[in-house]
Amino acid sequence: MPHLNPHDVMTMFAALATLLGCAKLAAELMHKIGQPSILGEISVGIFLGPTVLGHYRPHLYEALFPTTGPMPIVLDTVTTLGVVFFLLTAGLEIDLRSIFRQGKSALLVSVFGVAFPFVAGFAAAGTFPNYMGAEAGADTLIFALFVGTALSISALPVIAKILMDLNLLRTEMGTVIISSAMFDDLVGWILFSFVLGMMHPAAGGSLATSTKHTIVLVLLFVGLTLTLGRWLIDKILPVLQAHTTWPGGVLGFIFTLTLAGAAFTEYAGIHAVFGAFILGIAIGESGHLRKRTSESIHQIVTNVFAPFFFASIGLRINFAANFHLGLTATVIGVACVGKLLGAGWGARLGGMDRNSALAVGLAMNARGAMEIILGILALQAGLIRDHMFVALVVMALFTSLLSAPAIHFLIRRRRTLTLKDVVASKLFLPSVAATTRLGALRELCEIAAEAVSNAPDRLFRIVSERERVLASGWENGLAVPHARINGLTRPLVVVGKSAEGIDFDARDGKPSKLIMMILTGDNQSQHDLLGDASELFSHKEAVDQAVSANSFLELVAALNAPVQ
Amino acid sequence: MPHLNPHDVMTMFAALATLLGCAKLAAELMHKIGQPSILGEISVGIFLGPTVLGHYRPHLYEALFPTTGPMPIVLDTVTTLGVVFFLLTAGLEIDLRSIFRQGKSALLVSVFGVAFPFVAGFAAAGTFPNYMGAEAGADTLIFALFVGTALSISALPVIAKILMDLNLLRTEMGTVIISSAMFDDLVGWILFSFVLGMMHPAAGGSLATSTKHTIVLVLLFVGLTLTLGRWLIDKILPVLQAHTTWPGGVLGFIFTLTLAGAAFTEYAGIHAVFGAFILGIAIGESGHLRKRTSESIHQIVTNVFAPFFFASIGLRINFAANFHLGLTATVIGVACVGKLLGAGWGARLGGMDRNSALAVGLAMNARGAMEIILGILALQAGLIRDHMFVALVVMALFTSLLSAPAIHFLIRRRRTLTLKDVVASKLFLPSVAATTRLGALRELCEIAAEAVSNAPDRLFRIVSERERVLASGWENGLAVPHARINGLTRPLVVVGKSAEGIDFDARDGKPSKLIMMILTGDNQSQHDLLGDASELFSHKEAVDQAVSANSFLELVAALNAPVQ
Repeated sequence: MPHLNPHDVMTMFAALATLLGCAKLAAELMHKIGQPSILGEISVGIFLGPTVLGHYRPHLYEALFPTTGPMPIVLDTVTTLGVVFFLLTAGLEIDLRSIFRQGKSALLVSVFGVAFPFVAGFAAAGTFPNYMGAEAGADTLIFALFVGTALSISALPVIAKILMDLNLLRTEMGTVIISSAMFDDLVGWILFSFVLGMMHPAAGGSLATSTKHTIVLVLLFVGLTLTLGRWLIDKILPVLQAHTTWPGGVLGFIFTLTLAGAAFTEYAGIHAVFGAFILGIAIGESGHLRKRTSESIHQIVTNVFAPFFFASIGLRINFAANFHLGLTATVIGVACVGKLLGAGWGARLGGMDRNSALAVGLAMNARGAMEIILGILALQAGLIRDHMFVALVVMALFTSLLSAPAIHFLIRRRRTLTLKDVVASKLFLPSVAATTRLGALRELCEIAAEAVSNAPDRLFRIVSERERVLASGWENGLAVPHARINGLTRPLVVVGKSAEGIDFDARDGKPSKLIMMILTGDNQSQHDLLGDASELFSHKEAVDQAVSANSFLELVAALNAPVQ
Repeated sequence: MPHLNPHDVMTMFAALATLLGCAKLAAELMHKIGQPSILGEISVGIFLGPTVLGHYRPHLYEALFPTTGPMPIVLDTVTTLGVVFFLLTAGLEIDLRSIFRQGKSALLVSVFGVAFPFVAGFAAAGTFPNYMGAEAGADTLIFALFVGTALSISALPVIAKILMDLNLLRTEMGTVIISSAMFDDLVGWILFSFVLGMMHPAAGGSLATSTKHTIVLVLLFVGLTLTLGRWLIDKILPVLQAHTTWPGGVLGFIFTLTLAGAAFTEYAGIHAVFGAFILGIAIGESGHLRKRTSESIHQIVTNVFAPFFFASIGLRINFAANFHLGLTATVIGVACVGKLLGAGWGARLGGMDRNSALAVGLAMNARGAMEIILGILALQAGLIRDHMFVALVVMALFTSLLSAPAIHFLIRRRRTLTLKDVVASKLFLPSVAATTRLGALRELCEIAAEAVSNAPDRLFRIVSERERVLASGWENGLAVPHARINGLTRPLVVVGKSAEGIDFDARDGKPSKLIMMILTGDNQSQHDLLGDASELFSHKEAVDQAVSANSFLELVAALNAPVQ
């Protein structure tokens, strides 16, 4: 019985540490420049793979990611688990009811957004299969169906991230986009499962050997899981919550179901990710699934397991050697034109103005996770050649990169201000000298006035006047004095700490030890910052954390990542 | 480059789903009968392995867990990750400061609790190496050191679980036990790392080929990680919390460090789990690690990844064929006598009475995770024979099984009552007819009176009298009337729901829609139940969940697994 020897185990952990560490670093850098973190995770994999590291430091590459021995199997295992768990969380986020609840706009965007790129991709691939990178001997019809599907599928996690960063997620447009993306993902995966089913017989051998069999099994699986399965899960979850250890019982149930679903779809002749995705949808639909449970899963999966998968994409082939400019440009062109026209036209028909419709098209055009997963499966199945895979990955990266800046340019929506954006170490007073409310406000106003070259007396007059009308003490040792100052060009948050505490007439009678003075020139900024403060400090623990911050850094940590 | 084909992927998911599903089911059953869940996970693995399933249904066994092809590597990968992550969470729970803060008792229990079983095991194994299951050709000194270590190490997670179930964790005795167990684990692992280092040269080849080298590397690793590393981690965590995405940055950092530590210790010539354990300690020491972060990790790891490992133990060998009664009895005898005498005597010297000292010995005697991990490594390294491994696993199961009932018998400490234990569907009134406070109380009292064959008028008089003195409305639609009823032999919690709500004079002025009437015969039960209620309902979300429960089942779910 073959086992991992100590050297294999060492290599495994070294490889996983390198993949995860580099992926997270690149993801954070991408995040800093306002791009989805998945782009960083994929790019860093290309860097660590044969394209760069393998080319310039072949020995180091071979030591970290050996292509012989048990290591390829080890990496396959980890990345397969990573992508299956990732599809589980993607499924958990899909809300079937919200798709149906959306009106005409969402339906038109969904259907056109799938149909146009599908037809464009199908036509291009069917007409020029060889140029488009069909593997020699691959069935042209199946290949064309695959390309159509790969270009029409969406990338819900990437799109949701972009909308969230642009503060568009909770708008009407955002809801239309998200519903349409969910619909496109669902349709795309079902289409792809048929492509896979047509391509190679099921794994079960004698039981299911034909395409027909695969399609019947998949339809049964989707149909039963989303109706009877969904109903059963909704009945079982409260029983588990009532009668098993919390949260172990529920987590065990969710992961066991996911693994079983993955095994079944793989048996049926399509890929394990599909089973995890459909079961994720069925589980996520239950009103009894706690938000906290799905959040725990989401956190560990998206931050630890999914990066293994995304970073491993670049390990598969040499992206430089297999880069074909013409093919890549064609794929990008067909994909963008199909999606922008389809989704955009759908949005126009649904009644949106030209700019909004274009923004919808651009959002739906962002690819990422899903195309690439399809691409890997098609590559493994011998349907596409390496340079088509590279073209698909580059297309996914390019459309995702394009999306956020282009939408931002079109919509020019203000980001909601947060305290974290505004606080500054120059405006942090670690120890307020005063012991009275007015004395403390004067100290803070002096710091503020210096920062904006304003007269401290004027600021103090306005702030203290407002304080007189409405005391600014919140509960648990926090005070948030605030005022609108005409002519202030940027919002200021001055933070002072008092070890003994100062009476700000808080409802709970406690003295305030942390005073956050918010001064803004306009009402919108004030509204944003006060809203952020009241959300941040809605739990006592979060206030405690901010109040007990011993340095400016710890204060920023409390504002960026509050205890919840 | 070898890869997993679709059939391998299907087998992998089927095997993992079977392992996880059965392990969780068995764990929950064990929990129901008051035993640590790890016993269920290990037993179910023995059932699924060659001992039972492989013996009676060899074809099914071979289909699920093939011993040829890539599957053994796949299982090795998943279980190695599982045990490494499990040791990370074990390390996170260790609190170095609390070990040092404990006084004489803990020191005596720790040192005697390690020394006695170590000497006993060392002597037995050194004198009768062959009988004790040394592999042919194994160095007797190394073997004896191993047996001594395996018998002296503790099992912190199992012990903590037992104390928690017996409501002893927060007592002085509990603190002494936990501190001593932490100390024993730390010492045991360091001892074992030396045993491994002496046994076979490091994996690094030319760089570290000798035992001396391994020991130097391990000492450097432990020393640097627990001093400089700990300090650095404590500095870096707030920076990550302030400047990276939350919680992705922190999670990525923790897991990358863990994987890198695992790779390093494997390189140094000892096992990856040791690196994860030491890094877990260093990370857990930081005051900046959020409880929420370690909880997320703990939940997913202990409930999903660790069960893969514990269930896989039984897959390794045939426990029936390799069971040797004499050896097993000897190992159990030496282990129990050494630990009970050592830890118990330490506790007596530290000033405990005889019963408490014996309870300390019994708690420290509970084995589980750690012995077995050592056993697997020793088996893989060719140090012990199969029947010694079986003896170690049986010893771990036996001592854990013995522990809880024996301590319970000695200490006879009441378990704290919880609402979940006391509510009953017969005492649940889904719709209170009355619209007044007294009317509602009368209805609930009638149900209570029927359940205990008491006079409803008497109950009502006492409850309404108490209500007159102190209104029982809590916030957010909850009312908790309570009274002590002389002669009541068991506590009663009668729950009524009112759709419109009834005025119970709550502080927030809201009408109460959920009325939980607590009647007890003694003060302690009342104290327990009111304490449970005030802890359960400290967050508005948790109250909302209970108030909106539509059935008795959903009410139990809210009490068992509150939103936090």
